[in-house]
Amino acid sequence: MRVAMGVTYNGQNYQGWQSQSSGLTVQDKLEAALGKFSAQRVSTICAGRTDAGVHGIMQVVHFDTDRERNTNSWTRGTNANLPRDIAVQWSVFTTEEFHCRACATSRRYAYVLLDSPIRPSIESGRVGWTFRALDGDAMQSAAAILLGEHDFTSFRASQCQALSPIKNMLEISFNKRGAYWRIEFEANAFLHHMIRNIMGCLVQIGQGTKPPLWMAEVLAARDRRAAAPTFSPDGLYFLGPRYDANWGIPECTPAYDGLL
Amino acid sequence: MRVAMGVTYNGQNYQGWQSQSSGLTVQDKLEAALGKFSAQRVSTICAGRTDAGVHGIMQVVHFDTDRERNTNSWTRGTNANLPRDIAVQWSVFTTEEFHCRACATSRRYAYVLLDSPIRPSIESGRVGWTFRALDGDAMQSAAAILLGEHDFTSFRASQCQALSPIKNMLEISFNKRGAYWRIEFEANAFLHHMIRNIMGCLVQIGQGTKPPLWMAEVLAARDRRAAAPTFSPDGLYFLGPRYDANWGIPECTPAYDGLL
Repeated sequence: MRVAMGVTYNGQNYQGWQSQSSGLTVQDKLEAALGKFSAQRVSTICAGRTDAGVHGIMQVVHFDTDRERNTNSWTRGTNANLPRDIAVQWSVFTTEEFHCRACATSRRYAYVLLDSPIRPSIESGRVGWTFRALDGDAMQSAAAILLGEHDFTSFRASQCQALSPIKNMLEISFNKRGAYWRIEFEANAFLHHMIRNIMGCLVQIGQGTKPPLWMAEVLAARDRRAAAPTFSPDGLYFLGPRYDANWGIPECTPAYDGLL
Repeated sequence: MRVAMGVTYNGQNYQGWQSQSSGLTVQDKLEAALGKFSAQRVSTICAGRTDAGVHGIMQVVHFDTDRERNTNSWTRGTNANLPRDIAVQWSVFTTEEFHCRACATSRRYAYVLLDSPIRPSIESGRVGWTFRALDGDAMQSAAAILLGEHDFTSFRASQCQALSPIKNMLEISFNKRGAYWRIEFEANAFLHHMIRNIMGCLVQIGQGTKPPLWMAEVLAARDRRAAAPTFSPDGLYFLGPRYDANWGIPECTPAYDGLL
């Protein structure tokens, strides 16, 4: 039996998603909780690995099991064994044709950025920060350059394992609420560090250090050295993958959809 | 010279506001930072002491010093010596007639409550939680009973040091965004644990365990045993005091006003 789950987590206390020998990753904690609940070793596959410090609003995982439990029990039983900053939001049964990574048609991320002369405090670790006010029009002009299919090599980390640097950026949207920017990205897939590298460039453009058209130069260079330094992971949230409706996977985790 | 400051903090890592021999309180961290920046021992007074785990959106403090620094230096120099989950938002010079506690005409708090079958995760420690859906109309009817001047003894912690249990509740407002309730309280002053004890009652009423008019019985009893257990500190935020405009104290910390 194949089970898919939606998982929410605060990445501050973890060394990223992917399992490590330290045991201090979100996948390690999830698999330990699943193993404890089902009294069986469980191996999970996720829709999108997140870096250390990056948060998950709706990570989707799947795993196979021969334990017979209803979906509600999978959710609640796993949560009873998870640390307080990780929670399963829903569980569904799927067919073995469903693969949470391969079947995803796109992924969505949000970057939350505090635009204030004073650094974050109450939301430390959960937002990026710029102390120089940002020009939203300049950032939006620059972001528009990235829409569509491009070779995103300039925004790719050297350790990226993707087969191709060509990705299709479907949407980049900007919202500001109080002193917080929320910048949402949707693409068919993302390269390693791609959003944090794009954010580094957007912040330089928003601050006026570089003009909006600089983004076109960076993109055309196909060279990581052309772009800005990788921006902080603190404000990055994986909003989740999208699937064809016929897989029957929930579209969001209701409590968190649309929130900062 | 008297300086007033607006301070924002995440209460999760601290044993409340008030200085303790452990040194693990917000006041201890603030006074250590002020002392380091000014190379002088600094004693602060605050507008409202918060419990362990309670957050500050705009705590106001004042202190006296003979060091000559401009307000910007006080803000930035103190922040450079504070942990990342505490920050000074602004500093102003005041006269010695100003006292941040005695001059406050009212205080505002917000309680943020996740209304979801699944416990908090990404916002663990920063919201209260109810797994049974709440009836907003019932809670609002009950809250209306508390408006005006009353003897709030039923909602008062045994260790409360206030001279009188009679307080004037000026406003209680309810907002829901996604799965989060934000309940705002304004009163001339609050007793120790008063909001958490009111929240305990409101949640029982919202869940239908008690009818709205039970709030009137609890209030009339003037007995702590009549009310519900003290609710979690996790979702409680001190929004700040209000002062007469002629004191020249900022009304809010711009980055955080109106946010969860």
